[in-house]
Amino acid sequence: MSAMHFYEPAAGHGLAHDPFNAIVGPRPIGWVSTRGADGGVNLAPYSFFNAFNYIPPIIGFASTGPKNSLRNVQETGEFVWNLATRKLAEQMNATSASVPYGVDEFELAGLEKAPSRLVAPPRVAASPVHFECKLADIVQLKSAAGVPVSTWLVLGEVVGVHIDHALLQDGVFDTFGAEIILRAGGATAYAAIGPEARFDMVRPK
Amino acid sequence: MSAMHFYEPAAGHGLAHDPFNAIVGPRPIGWVSTRGADGGVNLAPYSFFNAFNYIPPIIGFASTGPKNSLRNVQETGEFVWNLATRKLAEQMNATSASVPYGVDEFELAGLEKAPSRLVAPPRVAASPVHFECKLADIVQLKSAAGVPVSTWLVLGEVVGVHIDHALLQDGVFDTFGAEIILRAGGATAYAAIGPEARFDMVRPK
Repeated sequence: MSAMHFYEPAAGHGLAHDPFNAIVGPRPIGWVSTRGADGGVNLAPYSFFNAFNYIPPIIGFASTGPKNSLRNVQETGEFVWNLATRKLAEQMNATSASVPYGVDEFELAGLEKAPSRLVAPPRVAASPVHFECKLADIVQLKSAAGVPVSTWLVLGEVVGVHIDHALLQDGVFDTFGAEIILRAGGATAYAAIGPEARFDMVRPK
Repeated sequence: MSAMHFYEPAAGHGLAHDPFNAIVGPRPIGWVSTRGADGGVNLAPYSFFNAFNYIPPIIGFASTGPKNSLRNVQETGEFVWNLATRKLAEQMNATSASVPYGVDEFELAGLEKAPSRLVAPPRVAASPVHFECKLADIVQLKSAAGVPVSTWLVLGEVVGVHIDHALLQDGVFDTFGAEIILRAGGATAYAAIGPEARFDMVRPK
């Protein structure tokens, strides 16, 4: 083992930049559309997002602070996840602007809406995959000492899935052909996943 | 928008393979070491894993079913996360074998242990980054209808961080030089992240 830098986060990292989100990554992007009780639409990318269960399919994103998507999900119990791809990167990034509640980020980013089938929030029409979700749970995070922190994990059951036929090869989703983008560390870094990134390993019995 | 395949997961996906975990990805790998109350060691990779909060740093992994890592964390309240890299891929994969409780996957995979500073579970000595974690919460997932599912999200506060100095460039963690591997969909697919994957975007104000 080489020489290691060690720190306790509670005492500071002692580096030029906090490395935490550069280490856990690159990460799938939670590009989430919601509607408020007033019918207004929100669209925003979440950096802490993933799948958590297969049957039923459950996904979740963390709202670090009480953001507009959290408010809308609390009001209406629904959200849509949209797959972020290389072609949509600039528009996805545009939806990360901090704007007042009520501003429609679809319009801000020049993105067309497509209606959903089972929930009220619209889908990003240009995205090749959408998950229509119904709220399963909202969990406020806490420290190991039990102190609540101002972050809420929003968990939703995926009740409807839309997939562009172009990304289905003989009925198998083509992850490495979808030009999926992931969030990396620091203020500006992303990864674009192409076929050259792939390798395969067979799981042992 | 191109033609879309639509399905409701509760009624079946209608495809050759369930596309769910091929769509949400590639995903960071939760390579987690734990100790049981009896002192026995476990090491296993989790496919549903991410960061969720910055201050304090909180990470979590989903145990789909009551796996050995969950049992150990329930018994002792601690775990260590180890960064999975391309050089360690085969050994990481070896630790995914389904073996009886009490089998030490470090030994199974030929991995050396390094002692931790603040918690009892050992670190994977050959891994370039380790997070020592104390249990913050265990959340059993549930469906949108409120039915509990047999999956538990284990959330831990990162209390100690070890980083190989070779991956710190002027105090900044070098995500794209670490040869991080991610889990993709299907039975065998992974992604290896190199410098060619990187692109940058400045977040709007």
